[in-house]
Amino acid sequence: MSNILKGVDKPEDLRKLNISQKEQLANEIRKEIINIVSETGGHLASNLGITELTIALHSVFNTPKDKIVWDVGHQTYVHKILTGRKDKMNTLRQLGGISGFPKIKESEYDSFDTGHSSTSISIALGMARARDIKNENNNVIAVIGDGALTGGMALEALNDAGNSKTKLIVILNDNEMSISKNVGGIATFLTKIRTRKFYKKSNNSIRKALENTPKVGTPIIRLARRIKYSLKQLFLPNMFFEDLGFKYLGPVDGHDIERLEWILKLAKKEQEPVLVHVITKKGKGYIPAEENPDKFHATGSFEIETGKSKKEKKKDYSAVFGEKLVELAKNNEKIVAITAAMTDGTGLKQFKEKYPNRFFDVGIAEQHAISLAAGMAKEGLRPVVPIYSSFYQRAYDQVIHDICIENMPVVICVDRAGVVGNDGETHQGLLDLAFFNIVPNLKLMAPKDFKELEQMLEYAITLNSPVVIRYPRGGENEKIKFEKHEEIIEGKVEILKEGKDVSIIAIGKMVAKGMEIAEKLEKQGKSVELINARFLKPFDKEKIIETITKTKNVITIEDASIIGGLGTKVKEIIAENKLQNINLKCYAYPDKFIEAGNVGELEEKYLFSVADNI
Amino acid sequence: MSNILKGVDKPEDLRKLNISQKEQLANEIRKEIINIVSETGGHLASNLGITELTIALHSVFNTPKDKIVWDVGHQTYVHKILTGRKDKMNTLRQLGGISGFPKIKESEYDSFDTGHSSTSISIALGMARARDIKNENNNVIAVIGDGALTGGMALEALNDAGNSKTKLIVILNDNEMSISKNVGGIATFLTKIRTRKFYKKSNNSIRKALENTPKVGTPIIRLARRIKYSLKQLFLPNMFFEDLGFKYLGPVDGHDIERLEWILKLAKKEQEPVLVHVITKKGKGYIPAEENPDKFHATGSFEIETGKSKKEKKKDYSAVFGEKLVELAKNNEKIVAITAAMTDGTGLKQFKEKYPNRFFDVGIAEQHAISLAAGMAKEGLRPVVPIYSSFYQRAYDQVIHDICIENMPVVICVDRAGVVGNDGETHQGLLDLAFFNIVPNLKLMAPKDFKELEQMLEYAITLNSPVVIRYPRGGENEKIKFEKHEEIIEGKVEILKEGKDVSIIAIGKMVAKGMEIAEKLEKQGKSVELINARFLKPFDKEKIIETITKTKNVITIEDASIIGGLGTKVKEIIAENKLQNINLKCYAYPDKFIEAGNVGELEEKYLFSVADNI
Repeated sequence: MSNILKGVDKPEDLRKLNISQKEQLANEIRKEIINIVSETGGHLASNLGITELTIALHSVFNTPKDKIVWDVGHQTYVHKILTGRKDKMNTLRQLGGISGFPKIKESEYDSFDTGHSSTSISIALGMARARDIKNENNNVIAVIGDGALTGGMALEALNDAGNSKTKLIVILNDNEMSISKNVGGIATFLTKIRTRKFYKKSNNSIRKALENTPKVGTPIIRLARRIKYSLKQLFLPNMFFEDLGFKYLGPVDGHDIERLEWILKLAKKEQEPVLVHVITKKGKGYIPAEENPDKFHATGSFEIETGKSKKEKKKDYSAVFGEKLVELAKNNEKIVAITAAMTDGTGLKQFKEKYPNRFFDVGIAEQHAISLAAGMAKEGLRPVVPIYSSFYQRAYDQVIHDICIENMPVVICVDRAGVVGNDGETHQGLLDLAFFNIVPNLKLMAPKDFKELEQMLEYAITLNSPVVIRYPRGGENEKIKFEKHEEIIEGKVEILKEGKDVSIIAIGKMVAKGMEIAEKLEKQGKSVELINARFLKPFDKEKIIETITKTKNVITIEDASIIGGLGTKVKEIIAENKLQNINLKCYAYPDKFIEAGNVGELEEKYLFSVADNI
Repeated sequence: MSNILKGVDKPEDLRKLNISQKEQLANEIRKEIINIVSETGGHLASNLGITELTIALHSVFNTPKDKIVWDVGHQTYVHKILTGRKDKMNTLRQLGGISGFPKIKESEYDSFDTGHSSTSISIALGMARARDIKNENNNVIAVIGDGALTGGMALEALNDAGNSKTKLIVILNDNEMSISKNVGGIATFLTKIRTRKFYKKSNNSIRKALENTPKVGTPIIRLARRIKYSLKQLFLPNMFFEDLGFKYLGPVDGHDIERLEWILKLAKKEQEPVLVHVITKKGKGYIPAEENPDKFHATGSFEIETGKSKKEKKKDYSAVFGEKLVELAKNNEKIVAITAAMTDGTGLKQFKEKYPNRFFDVGIAEQHAISLAAGMAKEGLRPVVPIYSSFYQRAYDQVIHDICIENMPVVICVDRAGVVGNDGETHQGLLDLAFFNIVPNLKLMAPKDFKELEQMLEYAITLNSPVVIRYPRGGENEKIKFEKHEEIIEGKVEILKEGKDVSIIAIGKMVAKGMEIAEKLEKQGKSVELINARFLKPFDKEKIIETITKTKNVITIEDASIIGGLGTKVKEIIAENKLQNINLKCYAYPDKFIEAGNVGELEEKYLFSVADNI
């Protein structure tokens, strides 16, 4: 068998192949992706699921003139391989390498940067309207998963798109396999399919999809299904799409290239919004991923034969948070936990199992998650809501409007705060410290280590007002072990070292870096005062003035943007109090979007490459 | 006829009345509301439309034990009159008076603070789940308009609520009257109504509602209908609600108290989520408002007989923006305008009429509005998106993720920035300066007067990167007329006065206040340097250092929170550059939510009550 992939660099090459060559190509690409991700880590299952669809899209559409907008963007490895980047895929998600998401800067085939969920229909509609205004005639295609449709903005966009009658293709990549035989909506749906001819054509693929659907699953999968189910109901009756102004085509087997190409050609002919419903299987073609698509959604490096992780998973902040919350919930029936489709990622798996009645997974719906928490808090509960930092940007108004105006006691846990590493620009959590700091009534903390996260969580639960705890991706600093853990007192720092030459003020995980620097300076004979800020708000002005006045040499360190965080607070204090002749060095990330790379590399590049000059 | 309202202070009193007494009460309340709002200004049409529904709700439900969550909250005047506040209604929306929105602090009957759209289902679901966890048995009712359903978070919440099977009542207050005879969905819907008995009962009211529906309307109304229409399709087939897990009841005539009570009692008996579809007429009972519900949605004081405004409407920033945009669009075909259901409020009416193909009203969907703009910008257009400051909080992630990461040239117009006045806490725009300042790649400007807004808009359109222009509600400072209008240069201040004793650095509308203070200080014999900052980002560090170093006495003034804006920038510069012995006074709003009041009163209370001591 010849190696087809070798001869395919760009979509032009692909378009010359026949169907059986494309089928072979799909297998070769799968193998290539498994090889790459087993080394670099990344999103595996979704890419294996979308291989044939990606081949069909680039075959039928004239990319890059035709624009494909990939929702959430982590399923674009196949796309990258087919658009001139196959030789660089070994640098995937590495500093200076190929991004794990589409990047306009990386290729003309990447029509828009994505990373967060549910944006594709809005962006594609914008592109389609621009095309019409410019009197051009390219196609615009949004590819969106069924999960991403639980995000409200995707529904806002469908509403607008359907109403507009703009020529636009939305591909619904339905990979949840949650269409099971006993669901009433399916029957209704099938009887409603209009295009009789098409119905016959895709009949087999529907049946096959149904047969492949497992009847049972783990509780997690079942919950995910339930969440997605109700939205699926929204979309199955094609009447819904027709009423909304969309023409509906499908469902079609997403692993049958011939049929995919046929249906995409139909879609291409339409002059109005059309939705193509494609059924795919996450992890397709790699047994460990097919059997465990959750685990292989995003993975570290692994052994190909067994699917086992190469590195042992170390304890991380999310796990510490989850365990402590379970412990606290035992004696406090008011504690409830809410997640926006991130039960595992945020460490809530155990909580969900222990307290199913106090656990709520609301889907990819951060806005709703927060206002839901507000309603619960009003009625006396203590909702705890862990969401990744960059996704809290989605719920900013709800935090302000529904939690903080009336001072609702919700515990806002900002997971993945600071630089997160290989996911890059869209996922770095560098802004939360600043954007939460400006919200009235909010307290804002960050722990120096696992133990302090436990302390802060225990403290937060007792408050009668909203509070943020931010903590990073990953685990503790391995070089530093803190012995001291003073009681948490509102707005008070913890003094870890007293000294008279240099003040190091740090917050969160950077307190450990502060300790490293302190020890280095001590070796140089300097007397260092090391302060764990603990709270950014309320800020311990008194102690900070005291230490600055004493040493007149100040270093601040934070895992956040240089604007609006710890450094800014210290500068404000210096100016407001007319502290004179203070030497100040603020370590923080510059005012730019930080690219992908290992956390250590990014810290070195942006924070500490000049640390030796202290 | 006896005066029924006199004898009604609390819902208990209401519950003793018979239907005809309640009908009379409704008329008395309408008259009362027209009297009040004609003096204080406020939201009229929606309150006249919801009078009977409010009476029916408080009759059937045991408030305050049963909780009503009013979406968007401006339709609660009837509710306030019926819950112990009728004698204070003359203080409506005034400093220290009754709020125009529900306020937990104001009454135990106000179960949650609302103000922004589409939050009620999330909050009510949170309350219902809390009730279940606490083993209590009260009812929770969300009252939401059809317009608010275009907001994505309302759909996120419906999805979660229906799935949960939690006992919850959602009242769909359908006041758009857009259900016209030729709409296909209605027929489908009627044939699908399950409860045959109920169908018979409400038959007449449906017919009446249909007959009352105007067949034509102004283009604006028709557009609003079209936007709402597609979502309406979503909801009319009760299959949708049933699939989602809701029981559907309705539609019912929202001005027939007897039928309303009957259907609400049915809803109350359900143990699962139920949606009651109520058809009401905005402005009901007051001819000028019935005929022109848009104008009487939110109004200033007016003459009751004619409906004419008492005060002549002065030119405001929104109008200046709109006119200038029309002028710029004439010679630049790339300019498009997007609004989230605020065509009039943001001054886009003329643009919409002149350039219908370049104008997009997307409904109450700020998230989608911004990502739509991002897609357009990517394809070479110059989208201009005016949204009120406090609603930009809804699109924060989209600004970061879809506009700024890839540096898309979108002109982000922040209308109603700063203190807006009588709408109070939920609508004040005090945070945008800070939350946009921390976003990489964003330029951030504010004009000192109308002319400078025009200059900035003209400048913004030429940029190849994202830019924010923030401007206030209302018009120019009446005491100050600026003669000087230098060309806008990126990141450069405009020096309005040169002096040596005091530096006044102001931004946006506060430059005029700066001029007032300058003139006052000059009368005291001081030499004042007055600096119009223009840009908060990039910030003109060089000039600021120069002026601070020269005068050593610095005043900053901004229409924003004290955290993260102009004052903070100046403090940072002082600390970073070790500027010594600088006397600094920063005028800005304190770190709290600012209540309702006239803008002048709030400025006096929070900014300048101590200005005399300068």
